[in-house]
This record gives sequence, C-alpha cells and structure tokens, in this order.
Amino acid sequence: HRSKLPDVGTTIFTVIGQLSSQYEAINLSQGAPSFPCDPALVSKVTQAMAQGHNQYAAMTGLPSLKERIAEKIAALYGRHYDVQREIAVTASASEALYSAISALVHPGDEVIYFSPSFDSYAPIVRLQGATPVALNLSVPDFRIDWDQVQAAISPRTRMLILNTPHNPSGQVLSRDDLASLARLLRNTDIVVLSDEVYEHMVFDGQRHHGMATHPELACRSVIVSSFGKTFHVTGWRVGYCVAPAALMDEILKVHQFMMFSADTPMQHAFADYMQDPNTYLHLASFYQAKRDLMVAQLADSPFRLLPTAGSFFMVASYGHLSDEPDSQLVQRLITQHGVATIPMSAFYADGTDNRLIRLSFAKDDATIVAGCQALCRVA
Amino acid sequence: HRSKLPDVGTTIFTVIGQLSSQYEAINLSQGAPSFPCDPALVSKVTQAMAQGHNQYAAMTGLPSLKERIAEKIAALYGRHYDVQREIAVTASASEALYSAISALVHPGDEVIYFSPSFDSYAPIVRLQGATPVALNLSVPDFRIDWDQVQAAISPRTRMLILNTPHNPSGQVLSRDDLASLARLLRNTDIVVLSDEVYEHMVFDGQRHHGMATHPELACRSVIVSSFGKTFHVTGWRVGYCVAPAALMDEILKVHQFMMFSADTPMQHAFADYMQDPNTYLHLASFYQAKRDLMVAQLADSPFRLLPTAGSFFMVASYGHLSDEPDSQLVQRLITQHGVATIPMSAFYADGTDNRLIRLSFAKDDATIVAGCQALCRVA
Ligand SMILES: CSCCC(=O)C(=O)O
Ligand SMILES: CSCCC(=O)C(=O)O
Repeated sequence: HRSKLPDVGTTIFTVIGQLSSQYEAINLSQGAPSFPCDPALVSKVTQAMAQGHNQYAAMTGLPSLKERIAEKIAALYGRHYDVQREIAVTASASEALYSAISALVHPGDEVIYFSPSFDSYAPIVRLQGATPVALNLSVPDFRIDWDQVQAAISPRTRMLILNTPHNPSGQVLSRDDLASLARLLRNTDIVVLSDEVYEHMVFDGQRHHGMATHPELACRSVIVSSFGKTFHVTGWRVGYCVAPAALMDEILKVHQFMMFSADTPMQHAFADYMQDPNTYLHLASFYQAKRDLMVAQLADSPFRLLPTAGSFFMVASYGHLSDEPDSQLVQRLITQHGVATIPMSAFYADGTDNRLIRLSFAKDDATIVAGCQALCRVA
Repeated sequence: HRSKLPDVGTTIFTVIGQLSSQYEAINLSQGAPSFPCDPALVSKVTQAMAQGHNQYAAMTGLPSLKERIAEKIAALYGRHYDVQREIAVTASASEALYSAISALVHPGDEVIYFSPSFDSYAPIVRLQGATPVALNLSVPDFRIDWDQVQAAISPRTRMLILNTPHNPSGQVLSRDDLASLARLLRNTDIVVLSDEVYEHMVFDGQRHHGMATHPELACRSVIVSSFGKTFHVTGWRVGYCVAPAALMDEILKVHQFMMFSADTPMQHAFADYMQDPNTYLHLASFYQAKRDLMVAQLADSPFRLLPTAGSFFMVASYGHLSDEPDSQLVQRLITQHGVATIPMSAFYADGTDNRLIRLSFAKDDATIVAGCQALCRVA
C-alpha cells in the first residue's frame, strides 16, 4: 500500500510526550495547561448533561454559543459576523483548519505558509493534492518578509496561512503587517486562513491584530480559534471558525461529513460561561505573569531567551553553547536533566535547525520554576 | 470560487431537523435518542473533570479505553487487536470514517459502496479525487448482489464500504455474505471499511456478523464504531476504529492532524463504564422492544413496514397509497401531520425514489406512540 504521507511520522507532541512520561520529566513541551480550569466551567458541563443536552447539537453549532462568538468578535475587533451563515463551531481548532483547507484548496493549488509553523498545515495541504509553499520567517525575530511573499505568489496560489500570535515563536503580526498583506492580496482571489487560537494571549499592553480587525482582509479570511486554549481545557475539543458566507458554505459541506457537530454539553457550558467576557479578557495578564516568571527563572540559565509577545510559548537559543542538533539536545534534556521541550526543527518541513528549543509556559508556577531550575543546571 | 462539492447541499438531517423544529413535529427522523442516557455515565464524566482530566488525551486514545475496546472485540467476536498499534479512539465515528477514507483512498481510485447509504460516504470519497461506485441494494429486502460486486471490481478499486447493521434499511449481513465477500476479495488488495456503529443492535436472537468475526476479512478491514450510538450520547463525539497496524499507521497520520485527540473526560467515563459489559449487551433487547412497539403501533397505519433486523431504523413503504415523491410526502408529514421522518431518496446519490421513508425508533416510548398515531392518521 502506498502512503499519502510517506514522509510523515508521529506528531512531535506525541513523541516528546511519551519520552517525557517515560522519564518522568517536567513537561514544558506541549501547550497543554498543567493547572485546572475554572470549576465553574466544569459545573456548567455537569449541569448541561443533567439537563439532557447529550445528543447531536446543530451541525453549525449551538446558536447561543455562536451568538457569544459574534458578540466577542464585534466587541473586540469591531467586525459583525452573521450568526446564521458565517460562524461554525467545530470539534477543535484542528478540525476547523482541516475542514477549511479540505473545502477550499484544490489539487494543483499552491498554499503559502510560514516556517516554523504548527506541524499540521503542510500535511493537510498535501492531502488535497496541493503544494505547500514554505517561506521562512527571519531568525531570531520571526518576522514575515512581505517582499518574499509577493515573489512567492503565483497564479496557482489559492491560500495563505497565517498564525498570530505565532506558535512556536510567540511573535505577533502588527497593523503594518496587515496593511502589507492587504496590499499584496488586492486583485487576487487568495484566501487567508488565519490561525488565531492564541488571540487572547497578547502581552505588554499590545492588542491582537487579527484578520477581523482589517475589513479588507476579513472579507477573504477564514479565522480559526479555540475554546480549549482560551479556557484551559485543551481536551474538550471545541473550536470555531468564522468566514464570509461564500467560504463558510464550502467549509460546512466538509464539516457536516467530517464531524457533523461538536460536543453538545461543552458547547452549552461555553455559551453560558462566555456571558462574562472577563473569562477570556483576563488571559493576557494571566499568561504574561507566567511568561515573566519563566524569564526571571531562566535569567541565570545558559540559554538565551528570545522575547515573547503573545501565545504561551517561548524560544530559547543554545547555539553559543553547543553545536548539537536540537532534537539531540531535547532528548538529552529529557533523559539527563528531566525537562521536556520541543525542538524547533520539528516546526520546519525541511528540518531547518537553528539550535533553538520551544518552551511552554502554560503550566502551573511550580512546574515552571522546577522546569527552569532543571534548565539552569544544563552545562 | 469553484466548489469541491458543487452538488452537495446541507445534510438531510439538518434540513429535516430544522423543518421538524419549526413545525414542532414529533421527531422520528435523525437517529438521536430522545431519552436520557444512564445518569451513572454522566457522573463519570463529572468525576473525570473533577479529577483534572481536561487536557489533550493521548493522540491514539486513552489507553484504558483502548483496552476496554480490545476486550469487548475479543469477547464478542474472537479477534485480538493490539492495543498499542491497532486501535484508535476518534472524535466520533464520522471522524473515523473520514480519516480512514482520507488516509487510504488516492486520487483516481474507485470506492465501491451500496445505495441507499449514510450520506457522507460518497462526498468523502469525492473529496479525495476518487470515484465512488454506487451499487444498489435490492428493494425491498436490501441485500447485496455479490455477482454485481464482482462485476464492479476493477483494477482501480481501492476500497469497499460496508455498513452492518445497515442505515437506513435495518438489514444485517449474514455469515454467508461475509464468505462471499472474502471469496471475491481474495487476490486483491482492496480494503474493507466497515461501518458497524449499530453493532449492539441486532434483534431476534441473531448475532452481529462484523468483519472482526471473519479472520480473512479482518486482515483487510477498518472497522468503525461509536460510543454515542451505543450509550445514548450522540452529542459526546467519541468513536473508534480498529485496523491492522499497516492500515492504522496511515489512518493515524491523518487523525493526528485532523483532530489530534478525542474528548478527554468522555473517554475516561466510557473506559470506566464499559467495565460492565451489560452496559452495551442490553442494547439488543432494549431496542428490539422499541422496534416491536413501533411495529404494533403502526399495525393499523396505511403504511407497509419492511422488517428491521438491526439498527434503530425502520423503513415504511407508501407506493400503494400515492405516487408523490418521498421528499414531498416527508414535507407533508411534517407540515400537515406533525411527524418527521427521512425520505429514502436522500440516501441515494442519484436520488432514486422507491416511495419509502425511514423512521427512527431511538425514541422514548411516548414519542414512538405519538409519532405512530400521527402516521396512522395519514390518508
Ligand atoms: C495538538 S498539539 C497542540 C498545539 C500545541 O499546543 C502545541 O504546539 O504544543
Ligand atoms: C450525523 S447524522 C447521524 C446518523 C444518524 O443517526 C441518522 O442516520 O439519522
């Protein structure tokens, strides 16, 4: 049997997670909170189940949850999405990304994305018989070179995938970035797929410049977000996407056969919980404090830290210490120092290795401190 | 923008569900229980959430749940699946079907399936750039003509999709069917994708003849099942598939990027709940009683009922009464008689209309009685 993804192995998060468990390492690898979610949110799920909300939800999502999403986007970003036609609740942000790419990218198309990136984008594009075109972000500041994007656009370019705040680098797009993007997409029919699952984790008083803030870009964008990331329940598998109706119609054709609907009791819980916007607005200061704790704890480590403007990830450089490949260092950190991180080369389709590792600070403070202490002991 | 599924509309379950709500009809359409699940199962979810099981589960599924699945299949069907490599928990049976087809079907391949069928199979195949080859089951007994299958197999045939017990007809495959299938697949490398989500709903003392009961077929089969159907929680979005390791390796490459993992607290609850096999073994008699209630209640109706051997669906014929198209009758039943069913033509890609409707008896007894009374009043 031929494989459709012959060179794809098991996702790095599973590989590192298993090694980390095996060595009982302090786990700063996957972006999965080690602290509990709000017990009030759990109670709402229990309540929804007790009220009998256990069967298929509406295929496009629970109407009340879609209303909360529309309200949130209108309040924060000033754009009004049609609750009936332009919002879909999905069974995770991953499913939203997969549905959008499956629905909109045809065989032979090209899809531009930026490396390093979350590991699913390129394989999903390849599964459509399309070509992922990777453009490298600058190192160490992880910015997009818009002239390079302009040069990469071809008549076959169908989609451009963005991610802000950016996993794995923690960088964010600026208003100027959006302006540059809008300018170069003008007179094309390229769709923007914007992964904004860390939208509420932007630090130092900055704002999130997502596609919904830019009317010209919003008109051609599918914007994906996640309840799991926002509410510290990555295992509950509910996300959403918003898009202009013409794009959403196509995405729903795929979603209805891929998943039909997302988890019903969890959707009820989120709809109720989001009535208080502070449930998500407090996230920026919550995670900024964790970032600052990690920076302080690593001050005396041998690693050089790159600044993080958003997300719950931080990048550390070690090229001045050793020339070993990042995957080898990560293995050594787990097996000899008891701390798990992710090698940045895993986020490059071509394995580019800039001698960087990614740390997650979506962890309780004790785990951050203990993990950083282990990193400080690395020679 | 071109559509990848230009002739696909909104799934029939959503269309009928909305019309049914609008007219406050008695809903015998979608296979979604109208009665509550076991409160003990709900308590187990609450307990799992309280214990902090709210983050990403293992990508292939919670190990304890995979063990319960392996035990169940070994006990009921006598086949032993490797818990590490041959079982995957998915975010619904729909996701399992989608992942399996995406992973295993290449552009240009042909996939044989049987009409009428669940509405997702053919579109998922088409999204792979492959050709769905529909073979019509006989009417009114909905059997497979194996000579016709033999004739339809070509060098491009990559997969054959089965579904037993069968939605929408309620028919089941026999041991002889499996023998015929095994014979004609010998010396081919055709994969069987077997949708067995109604495996525990087989009536009149018959057994479920799934692919796992037939060693020669099991070696080439991906078998899909559903916790939602089995435990009356279709909104919880957890299913699973089993397959030989070489096939499962490919399915997991897709699953890891489509969904990463299924709902964590629900997986914990199912793993705990399934320790008592009676939680699923009682289903056959439970649904047989509902089938018998529906048959009794419709005895004086103008419809002719076709026998149901499994699943929670029944087919009713009305060609002797009127020659109106089934979709028109279904519309009239909702708007004028207050009862919702599904037109059988929706389960045929080419819209074949044999003047049949599908009724679901996954309903509380009062709903079955009321729905049948409405159907008895049809002239
Ligand atoms: C499915 S892995 C989720 C993404 C993430 O949290 C990570 O990059 O660690
Ligand atoms: C997603 S619809 C589920 C399938 C089913 O229950 C039906 O055929 O009604």
